[in-house]
Formats: sequence, structure tokens, C-alpha cells
Amino acid sequence: MAEKRCVVLLSGGLDSATAAAMAAAEGFSIYALTLHYGQRHKRELESAMLIARDIKAQKHLVLDIGLDKIGGSALTSGAEVPKGDSPATGGIPVTYVPARNTVFLSYALAWAEVLETGDIFIGANINDYSGYPDCRPEYIHAFEHMASLAVKAAVEGRVRFRINAPLIGMTKAEIVKKGLSLGVDYSHTWSCYDPARGESGLVPCGRCDSCHYRAKGFSEAGMPDPLLKKNI
Amino acid sequence: MAEKRCVVLLSGGLDSATAAAMAAAEGFSIYALTLHYGQRHKRELESAMLIARDIKAQKHLVLDIGLDKIGGSALTSGAEVPKGDSPATGGIPVTYVPARNTVFLSYALAWAEVLETGDIFIGANINDYSGYPDCRPEYIHAFEHMASLAVKAAVEGRVRFRINAPLIGMTKAEIVKKGLSLGVDYSHTWSCYDPARGESGLVPCGRCDSCHYRAKGFSEAGMPDPLLKKNI
Repeated sequence: MAEKRCVVLLSGGLDSATAAAMAAAEGFSIYALTLHYGQRHKRELESAMLIARDIKAQKHLVLDIGLDKIGGSALTSGAEVPKGDSPATGGIPVTYVPARNTVFLSYALAWAEVLETGDIFIGANINDYSGYPDCRPEYIHAFEHMASLAVKAAVEGRVRFRINAPLIGMTKAEIVKKGLSLGVDYSHTWSCYDPARGESGLVPCGRCDSCHYRAKGFSEAGMPDPLLKKNI
Repeated sequence: MAEKRCVVLLSGGLDSATAAAMAAAEGFSIYALTLHYGQRHKRELESAMLIARDIKAQKHLVLDIGLDKIGGSALTSGAEVPKGDSPATGGIPVTYVPARNTVFLSYALAWAEVLETGDIFIGANINDYSGYPDCRPEYIHAFEHMASLAVKAAVEGRVRFRINAPLIGMTKAEIVKKGLSLGVDYSHTWSCYDPARGESGLVPCGRCDSCHYRAKGFSEAGMPDPLLKKNI
């Protein structure tokens, strides 16, 4: 049987690690793509490398894409990451990076075309971060349609592009449970936007939005977070 | 009156220089964006800088975006650029870069959002390179629709995204005439994919597809190419 390939956008976080494990469980060979854009720490990249190894990726491509030069986000500029017990709901968080998923999916599309596959996996999820417009199903569908008109392989009818976003409607707890059932080692993932330096390396702040949602996910799934156990 | 901003994708070639001049003629303040992706020579970048100065760009952002690491094109890989008197017609040229316009427009979208404008200019043109799927109007419209769902500013109703592709239906001769009427200095532009080193710097090969279409444009417009005059 021919190899069934897919490109997985792998950030090193909990969501993309789970999406990658789901792609592998569907029988795909994984071509993992990590796009670095000047985040203020590189801890996520290390996680992406661990996860790529865990899922036995055929190839792991890490690109520095210069998106930070455009600015506009607390994650890439010098602005302070918002913290508190009640993360912002309703509005779009200031940690939103302009057009991030569009830029990410565009690179995935380029690589998918080279690999002659139409399947792309992204860990986009609408529930926890309802303020991110580029995590909604209608956005994903519009990207898929655009992709079908954009690239040689699709226009020539050799591939059909599918943006697989298997987590899109899941809660964080459902994601954690799903990942654990597939053997994801969450101690290899990283979520914190603003870690502190501890005795044995970086320690999650426990207060940023991303830490908050992660903790909520493990708590609701009734499981301890193995990353915290490791750091304490 | 408030500043009317636009992002212009500026490669340094004849088309994008003309599109930039057309945007300026419409009263836009120009925010020029040049995306470098490991082309085999950097001559185009120098042209982009000259043109940005010519059109009095408010800002010129040059980003290295690592697209060459993905491969798949004679322009970014080690493959030989095809030459001959009869450039390929009908099929998609091997100089096609996977998802290039999608990646380029995604960055333009990110910057446009930061600048709080919805106007993006791209020198896409369907006539000469009919084999590039991402130069067709239906592609441009699909990108525009996706963009309207992707970004905070559009979702919040503060901006409406328009991908302006003013050259899309023009012949190369019409583009040259239009540019000359707007005062574009074409000796500052660069088109050749595979230049040779001459006594006074790089010299266009005169044989690649891009040289061929450029020469045809100037010839049909009944004008000499000022770049060639300079190099001879």
C-alpha cells in the first residue's frame, strides 16, 4: 500500500500533540511542521522535537518564518502577557497573533503540495479560545476552498485538500482524555506563554490563559498534568 | 484626512513595481512588503529597495521567510531554470513555487491587520503566466473571502479586506505602458531568473521565461527596456 502522508502543524503544545497522535492513529505518515516566529522563549520548540520523535514523524521541518517582525501581539512583541484568575472571555485575547493560522496553513499547503498529499492537520480548537477568529469551522472551510484553487496539484486534480481540525469542537478535557487514550506523553508538551526559570529548567507560570486552560483540561479529565509533576 | 494605507507585495519585478505605482496613484500610503525566500540571487531585493524609495514608501519591510526550505521549485531548489526561445505554454512552469501567493498574501494580511487597513496590492497577472493557478481571479476572490473570516479586524467590522490585483487581466505591454505613464523607472526593476555576471554587475540572461515576457512587453509597447540599455 502506498504511504498515506499528511502534514501536521506541530507547535509543541497540548492541542497539536493530540492532533498529531490522532493523525497517526488514522494511519497517516506524519510530516511535522514547526513554524518558529520569535516567541519569547524556545521551550515550545524543544517540546515539538520531543513530540515529533514520540509519534515517529517521517520528517520534522522547523522553519524560522520571521512573523515576529510584523508585530501586533503580546506573544511576539515586548508587551506583557495578561495574567489573572479569570482569563478574558468574549473578546479576542491580546495574545492573538495577526493571521497566524493563515500563515501557518499556507506553509503547510506548500509542503503538502511538494509531498503530493492533500491532508493537513491542525490543532485548532474553538471552545477554550472562542475569541480567535481563525479557529472557527467557517474559517477552516474557507481556507480549504481557497487552497483548492491555489495550487497546481489540486488544480490538476491530483490531490484534494482537506484541512483536518479534529479538535475543533472538543473541550480541553476531551482533548486530554483522547490524547491519553492514544498514548500521548503530555510531559513532553508545553503550553505556558510566560515561564519562570526553576532549578531544573523552565517552570510554567500557572497564571497565563494557556496555563489556565491546560489546568482546567486536566482537572476536568480527572488526571494530573505530568508536566507539573516533573517540574515540582 | 486620515492616512489611506495599503500593503503592497513588492518583489522587485516589473509587475509589482507597476502595481505599487498604481496604488500610489490612487492616493494610498505605501507599506511595501518584500518576502525573501532563498532565491538563488539577491538582485531582486536590491530592486525592491530602489522601487520602495522611488514610490516614497512609508515603510519597507523585508522578511526572510524560509520558504526555500520546503523546496519544490526550480527557483528555490538546485534545479536548472528552463530556457529556450519558446517558453512553455499551457502547462504550469517548473518555476512555480508551491503556494507562493498564498504564503505572500498571508503575510500581507498579517501586516494589514496591524496597520488597521484592509487594502492589499499584489502584481498577480494571468495572461503571461496562465499556468500559475494562484494568479487567477477566482483564487484571489477565495483568498479575500477566507481573509474576511480569518482576522480580528475584519470579524469586528473595523476593516474590509480587499486583495487588489490591478494587473490581473492586463498584457505585459499594457503593464509597461501603464507604468511608464505613472513614471515607473523600469531600470530599477529586475525580472531575470538566472542572470550572468557582467562587467558592471549582473546581466539578465535574456532566455528564461521571465526575460522572455519582459522583452515581449517592452517590444509590444514599442519601448526600449531601460534595464538592458543600462547593462549594455
